[in-house]
Amino acid sequence: MTGNGRRVTVLISGTGRSLENLIALRDAGELNCDFARVVSSRAGVRGLTVAEEAGIPTTVVARKEHFGTQVFSEALTAVVMADRPDWIVMAGFLSLWLLPESLLGKVINIHPSLLPLFGGKGFYGHHVHEAVIASGMRISGCTVHFVDTRYDKGPIIHQRCCPVFPADTPDDLASRVFGEECRALPEALRWCLDGEVALGEGRVLYSDRLLRPSGQAEDEG
Amino acid sequence: MTGNGRRVTVLISGTGRSLENLIALRDAGELNCDFARVVSSRAGVRGLTVAEEAGIPTTVVARKEHFGTQVFSEALTAVVMADRPDWIVMAGFLSLWLLPESLLGKVINIHPSLLPLFGGKGFYGHHVHEAVIASGMRISGCTVHFVDTRYDKGPIIHQRCCPVFPADTPDDLASRVFGEECRALPEALRWCLDGEVALGEGRVLYSDRLLRPSGQAEDEG
Repeated sequence: MTGNGRRVTVLISGTGRSLENLIALRDAGELNCDFARVVSSRAGVRGLTVAEEAGIPTTVVARKEHFGTQVFSEALTAVVMADRPDWIVMAGFLSLWLLPESLLGKVINIHPSLLPLFGGKGFYGHHVHEAVIASGMRISGCTVHFVDTRYDKGPIIHQRCCPVFPADTPDDLASRVFGEECRALPEALRWCLDGEVALGEGRVLYSDRLLRPSGQAEDEG
Repeated sequence: MTGNGRRVTVLISGTGRSLENLIALRDAGELNCDFARVVSSRAGVRGLTVAEEAGIPTTVVARKEHFGTQVFSEALTAVVMADRPDWIVMAGFLSLWLLPESLLGKVINIHPSLLPLFGGKGFYGHHVHEAVIASGMRISGCTVHFVDTRYDKGPIIHQRCCPVFPADTPDDLASRVFGEECRALPEALRWCLDGEVALGEGRVLYSDRLLRPSGQAEDEG
């Protein structure tokens, strides 16, 4: 698989499980792109190994080695821009990135809740699922959104939902939501690669096909 | 069908479409209860005709003929209590009812959003769906919850979700959510009738069976 020439950079901070899923779908011919680079905001994480084993170039821009969000963001921007990727996917990337204006509408993020619920500073990993369980909600899910310079606030591209069972531990719920993430992120990335979504004036523009999907897409929802 | 002796009072304010669904399921043997009475907070609404045609006693406690929430609530409580129902279902009931302590844990409500999103004063009917569409969320749904004396705030018993399509009008979304309501409300009412849920100290207690449903219930979620 060489892809259709669209080049995607993936930003990670940890295990790279979403990255692994994207690579597997690319290898299976279900995601038509090349991976330009994997950039991690933490050194020594498993996700870097995942990338290396797939032959994807990696760079660490360690958050803790940069003083403040501004300096970190500048370093990250330089690394990302050098490859001139078509799309940038935050897949378990936990640091705030003040991205340059020129990248608005080219960066997407996946978050393990139905935003605007359980998003923003402090809501990552198990903190999200603990909060969902404490709320008593019986539905959770995940959100793919365009990234702006605020945590988890950009316009929503796609969401998928799943049940929350009363006896769920945060790990139980995380697993179930991750199953939805493994579908939602590739679906949304495919839409990006195929030019079926774009960032308009602070909102998401959809192709005619996506505006009101037929029966098949009811299932995708 | 005479039911198993559990008697349910249904509170409505309008068309009675949820009531119609409950009656149809009762008639089909899928909901094992009797309807003690239908009480409407508005005179002349279609839901009263639905009840009458099903042979269910009706009473109007018109919100606008009672001065203030307290006086209205006392009148409604008197009508409801006279029948000594086992359960009280708000199915499109739009008035605030300051229910007596003795009824806490016996009254359930269905709301056409994933609470706590899009609930509270002013969020009823098309206002809910307009707000969901304006938010850009791609998932909505419905919530069944125990009623306390605040709008849409009691502990959540059950939720179901559905997609929001980018081109949805509020009516499109209302129809899709109503499809979920027609499953969620009978499911939750069945749990109530069967003693599988109860209101504990401000939270919902579930039977062992419901705590972590197996495969079949994944579909119910």
